[in-house]
Amino acid sequence: MPVTPDQQAEIDALRASPRQTLRAVSDGAEKHLYTAHPVLDHGFVRLIDYMGDDAAICQAARVSYGKGTKSVQNDEGLIRYLMRHWHSTPFEMCEIKLHVKLPVFVARQWIRHRTANVNEYSARYSILDREFYMPDPSQLAAQSTINNQGRGASLTPDESARVLDILKGDAAQTYDHYAEMIAEEGPDGTPKQGLARELARMNLPANIYTQWYWKVDLHNLFHFLRLRADAHAQYEIRVYADVICNIVADWVPAAYGAFADYRLGGAVLSAKGLACLQRMLKGEEVTQETSGMSKGEWREFQGVLA
Amino acid sequence: MPVTPDQQAEIDALRASPRQTLRAVSDGAEKHLYTAHPVLDHGFVRLIDYMGDDAAICQAARVSYGKGTKSVQNDEGLIRYLMRHWHSTPFEMCEIKLHVKLPVFVARQWIRHRTANVNEYSARYSILDREFYMPDPSQLAAQSTINNQGRGASLTPDESARVLDILKGDAAQTYDHYAEMIAEEGPDGTPKQGLARELARMNLPANIYTQWYWKVDLHNLFHFLRLRADAHAQYEIRVYADVICNIVADWVPAAYGAFADYRLGGAVLSAKGLACLQRMLKGEEVTQETSGMSKGEWREFQGVLA
Amino acid sequence: MPVTPDQQAEIDALRASPRQTLRAVSDGAEKHLYTAHPVLDHGFVRLIDYMGDDAAICQAARVSYGKGTKSVQNDEGLIRYLMRHWHSTPFEMCEIKLHVKLPVFVARQWIRHRTANVNEYSARYSILDREFYMPDPSQLAAQSTINNQGRGASLTPDESARVLDILKGDAAQTYDHYAEMIAEEGPDGTPKQGLARELARMNLPANIYTQWYWKVDLHNLFHFLRLRADAHAQYEIRVYADVICNIVADWVPAAYGAFADYRLGGAVLSAKGLACLQRMLKGEEVTQETSGMSKGEWREFQGVLA
Amino acid sequence: MPVTPDQQAEIDALRASPRQTLRAVSDGAEKHLYTAHPVLDHGFVRLIDYMGDDAAICQAARVSYGKGTKSVQNDEGLIRYLMRHWHSTPFEMCEIKLHVKLPVFVARQWIRHRTANVNEYSARYSILDREFYMPDPSQLAAQSTINNQGRGASLTPDESARVLDILKGDAAQTYDHYAEMIAEEGPDGTPKQGLARELARMNLPANIYTQWYWKVDLHNLFHFLRLRADAHAQYEIRVYADVICNIVADWVPAAYGAFADYRLGGAVLSAKGLACLQRMLKGEEVTQETSGMSKGEWREFQGVLA
Repeated sequence: MPVTPDQQAEIDALRASPRQTLRAVSDGAEKHLYTAHPVLDHGFVRLIDYMGDDAAICQAARVSYGKGTKSVQNDEGLIRYLMRHWHSTPFEMCEIKLHVKLPVFVARQWIRHRTANVNEYSARYSILDREFYMPDPSQLAAQSTINNQGRGASLTPDESARVLDILKGDAAQTYDHYAEMIAEEGPDGTPKQGLARELARMNLPANIYTQWYWKVDLHNLFHFLRLRADAHAQYEIRVYADVICNIVADWVPAAYGAFADYRLGGAVLSAKGLACLQRMLKGEEVTQETSGMSKGEWREFQGVLA
Repeated sequence: MPVTPDQQAEIDALRASPRQTLRAVSDGAEKHLYTAHPVLDHGFVRLIDYMGDDAAICQAARVSYGKGTKSVQNDEGLIRYLMRHWHSTPFEMCEIKLHVKLPVFVARQWIRHRTANVNEYSARYSILDREFYMPDPSQLAAQSTINNQGRGASLTPDESARVLDILKGDAAQTYDHYAEMIAEEGPDGTPKQGLARELARMNLPANIYTQWYWKVDLHNLFHFLRLRADAHAQYEIRVYADVICNIVADWVPAAYGAFADYRLGGAVLSAKGLACLQRMLKGEEVTQETSGMSKGEWREFQGVLA
Repeated sequence: MPVTPDQQAEIDALRASPRQTLRAVSDGAEKHLYTAHPVLDHGFVRLIDYMGDDAAICQAARVSYGKGTKSVQNDEGLIRYLMRHWHSTPFEMCEIKLHVKLPVFVARQWIRHRTANVNEYSARYSILDREFYMPDPSQLAAQSTINNQGRGASLTPDESARVLDILKGDAAQTYDHYAEMIAEEGPDGTPKQGLARELARMNLPANIYTQWYWKVDLHNLFHFLRLRADAHAQYEIRVYADVICNIVADWVPAAYGAFADYRLGGAVLSAKGLACLQRMLKGEEVTQETSGMSKGEWREFQGVLA
Repeated sequence: MPVTPDQQAEIDALRASPRQTLRAVSDGAEKHLYTAHPVLDHGFVRLIDYMGDDAAICQAARVSYGKGTKSVQNDEGLIRYLMRHWHSTPFEMCEIKLHVKLPVFVARQWIRHRTANVNEYSARYSILDREFYMPDPSQLAAQSTINNQGRGASLTPDESARVLDILKGDAAQTYDHYAEMIAEEGPDGTPKQGLARELARMNLPANIYTQWYWKVDLHNLFHFLRLRADAHAQYEIRVYADVICNIVADWVPAAYGAFADYRLGGAVLSAKGLACLQRMLKGEEVTQETSGMSKGEWREFQGVLA
């Protein structure tokens, strides 16, 4: 359960008290505010704040005095033009702030996107909760034999069961030890020193959950989503990216539409790929041997055209 | 006049239609929204949007589920602690978007602060207005003889008048030529080619006004303000920084208070300076010769203690 | 003439004294060091320093103890793989430092690439030289009627001559006035106050030359080059990008090769474009009307396939 | 043992083959190149590459054609001036690349410094080594009762021994399980599926060692060092910062000297602190009650003056 009843009560209280503002308001974003979208077994994504909407992208692109909107249709055309021609600065004029609860190994991938602001729950200062990511058996797979950094065939039920036994057992034991080390009294209630939290945390495995506030502009968020909502991304981060895609689609529908068309659903062709394509459109049969591409490139090129 | 009646009407329209939101609202910021604060002779600063408030800084620092506020007093103490100990990430959780009209030579200084988002009015696409910064005679000063990159004594009235004549004359002439080059008809109305705008703009001097949307998080804004609201900053950028200080003080009063105490009004002492201070507090007379400092350092050290 | 005899003597002296190092050395980069490659009428690009080479990209990608090189062929394959799959961090492990002399209006475009380090010649502190960009008549063109921010047909010889007369006259006059304002004696030799340089510079037009040291990592440099060596970039910045492309091709030939294939010579297709392509490859006739694209998109799509 | 004999042989080979370069060379840095400076029980810091030296800082600050050096003394004065007046861009003109081996929980603190380039060893692609940080008993301490995120009194020998038993036992067990999960044959040699590495890694605790290439400019490195070589930083990252300080002191001695004086050894006083100081220098007795400071601030203020 990602959110406790107390936390849900806090969320409900926040959602119950709208206030007035003169700022740009996105109705699509408002409906998500504070709500915890569950991800994995204990994680979530919560929209905490946002700045701007589709019109704000156009307003900045036009450096307008007023709203900058001419018409919704006109705005959508401008947004598609900006996306197609790599004009990134107008998209930077929108900003989003999320509260995310996620396993540490996912957080370690996520943080490699540096152009964002992050405030993580401090395990020097606070005690981490006993919550660990346990994969659904359907997600337990062998090392891929094609892609050196991905997953291949599913594990057999026996092997899945063995893996889950290990993960559960080690999580329970390492957390028990963590709690014992920081405890300020022994099992019999006698006072003892508690190991400093900044040290004790080192015993906790990477599937323990952490949480952070993460704030990013729309351009850099799109970059994150293109890489992490991609089929090659690790499943455990992709599910977060998918949830964020849904929030963004409601927040800035025109910008998300352009992103989906030109980035998520689009493809980059190399000069070699374009040359092959031009030959193919003239009716020529092109093979890997005559393409000038390596086997890997050719396989990916075929994937794009399929 | 920084804002035309048409622009003022657009501003008034925006200020007339509040909407409901569930986001954090800062009443201090709301009252500034869209209003053009005049700066220099034709410039302005307008608050276009903001994200977060004092409570949002604490909310992120505590990675809270709810508002994160315990009490205003408690929050202020936390904010002062964060500022004093260089915890920058909670301040990054607030964001501000400004529309600024400013002379090009000021824009060139401003843009050196890279951790911000900018959308500038495009002189490749659009025609610049005939608006040039003309310094007030009180601001016309000679090169400083102490500080190699500042101003010293005021110019005599004669010299001031000569400088203003030059600036006005050259502004008028270069703009006339700019307009002539891009014009698509000659003075007699016959059609002619207009020089591409991306070329014609090269004839315009650095005191012409440009404008941009500028978006920045509060931590980086404080860094900008510390350098640009400083007495050593060039007057023409300092007046912008001063106006922004006033907006920020209304938007996030506790954070601004901590900034004013620890950064704007504070001072950095070197190891040498601290050693001198410790001797002075013991009653020792310390001079530049016995301080281990250069003359420049000593003069600045004296300034801090005065 | 971009470089004076004195400056050339300094360059020659630097090139005459090699030293020993244990660092990665790129012979292709060494031959460029310090040499001023002329650009436009008074500008240049000079390679001042570099860090890393093709092998250093692989070394970082493999987090190796030693050189990280297996074989040149193997390295090239890895580099192409990294480029194709948007692995940007290994390319960030190479760094380049350039000394660039360029017109101010070009510098204003250039600086919008924020992920770089810049030290510009200070016109608060120093006096700018009397050097202005005067376009070659072949570069004087009218505003484009298709692309709202580009150039179209060349100007007629008469109009070209008129434009050059204006640019030359205004450059001479504004510089004369600049020199007069900062002068510390009058034309007759009597002492006078010189206007502070930070003020006087405002009279100088945007075609005056400035210079800076610019340092950037290879990933961000590729991003700069993709946008600025592109046919849609303004000619006056494109010629700088072209010169830098040549330096980079000598410095890191494998990385540059991958960049040229996947980025410079490649193309991005949208989801709509891919769908059209798949229909076309099956022999279907697709027109703009049946493509789902706007006219602008369709024209660009046709350009990619041509 | 941080480096194996094979790795040492690779290091020795790299150090045996100097090459010629025309770039700026720092003899102080050359002597560190590739050498592994041991940190903690299995970690190290290795200098892989550097760009620039003290003279390069001045060269950029002066935007020089040649070396930019006037004299060593003159350069040192300029560097101190730049540091004192927060001119950060000349320091950004130097760059350093390190290979660091460090526990994961230290890496998680380190990565929060975002203005740097990082390539980490991939546990999706590769198998992590069986190496865990085990604190020296002298470093095992209780949670601080003053500072909520630090260490206080040392643990008793009994409690230390218990903590080390736990850490060693859990490290051994979780690694055994990690190895078992990814193994492609069972204990009896029969083939089995190996769990994907990207999943298996989640069982490993935060004291396992990872490694990365880390590249940063000198300005941002100074910022890192000021925070992480500070007495309030966690011991396990401070020891890395201390080793890097030594390398930097040899690489750019003048810049490091200025940094040590103005940042590491200096202090920031608030406006309130300055006001107290001025009263104290006039002979007034100032107490916390009359200082206007909170207890925490006053304690820190006393620490600065002691």
